[in-house]
Amino acid sequence: MGRWEPNAAGRLREAAMDLYVERGFEQTTVAEIAERAGLTARTFFRYFSDKREVLFGGSVELQEHLVQALAAAPDGAPPMEAVAAALDAAAVLLGDNRKFSQRRQSVIAANVELQERELMKMASLSVAFADGLRRRGASDVDARLTAEAGVAIFRVAFERWVSEPGVKALLQVVRDSVDQLKALTAE
Amino acid sequence: MGRWEPNAAGRLREAAMDLYVERGFEQTTVAEIAERAGLTARTFFRYFSDKREVLFGGSVELQEHLVQALAAAPDGAPPMEAVAAALDAAAVLLGDNRKFSQRRQSVIAANVELQERELMKMASLSVAFADGLRRRGASDVDARLTAEAGVAIFRVAFERWVSEPGVKALLQVVRDSVDQLKALTAE
Repeated sequence: MGRWEPNAAGRLREAAMDLYVERGFEQTTVAEIAERAGLTARTFFRYFSDKREVLFGGSVELQEHLVQALAAAPDGAPPMEAVAAALDAAAVLLGDNRKFSQRRQSVIAANVELQERELMKMASLSVAFADGLRRRGASDVDARLTAEAGVAIFRVAFERWVSEPGVKALLQVVRDSVDQLKALTAE
Repeated sequence: MGRWEPNAAGRLREAAMDLYVERGFEQTTVAEIAERAGLTARTFFRYFSDKREVLFGGSVELQEHLVQALAAAPDGAPPMEAVAAALDAAAVLLGDNRKFSQRRQSVIAANVELQERELMKMASLSVAFADGLRRRGASDVDARLTAEAGVAIFRVAFERWVSEPGVKALLQVVRDSVDQLKALTAE
């Protein structure tokens, strides 16, 4: 970060989200984002490879963090418990910026290409969870089922947290959703 | 179907799958598909709007069929049981052509754009299941969780059926997978 551009990445991210919400993702240019942030396009490209990275940047690091949390679950913990530990870690990381998540969600919901990218990110997370569960000794089928269920739980919990007024903390919504799926499959 | 083109759609589908597997989806043209089938491109477009429809045609009808099966589950059946009935219907419909499914899966696995389309199809199915469950009286959260779990189960079961040698009928793999997720969430 340059001396004359305090918090440039944050300002660019804010400006981009404002414009994506106001005009739509497609209709926003990098030049406009930079202008809104009082910075240059050159500075934008110092922090983001393109417009999409404002929305998806950091997802590789997030996935690695979750896989580590899964691996760190107690030895002998059953697969669903290990995945729940990873979902807890995700909730802690993502749970402190509901406003950003709300705007991000609305931008993605309005654009098919972004929805596809988000789904691919979730599919990649499921594959990573399954790999982690196999390394913990789960059978291939158990690993895949639990990983898919975990991602499904997180997706539903995250959408609730983003969209429902007066909702609890993300961590609590995630834990409630794990319990709720358990109850639903026990019926 | 014209008098001189018996089973044109089936021949075109076979030819397309052969070429997608041999050369890759991107590298195959409609003209080549038609030639391989001994038909014309004009005939191809009578049955398929484009190359992708060979792989994704019928998915709207499939989804409608599954939603009907979900709606037809006994009154008072819990959400997971209604979704299991829909997955049974899917297994019955898709379970008699493993060879086609195997080739389709391998073509999709080799192409990111097709993977995205397949994920969007699954997401659409999840939304349709959740709508159907709400119409059956499930709460919004129960509907979304069960729908996502159901699609997750089907995806894992379908992949097992397609990829594992000497596997059971799709219907059995689906039912086993439902039971297995129940066991995993009960731990």
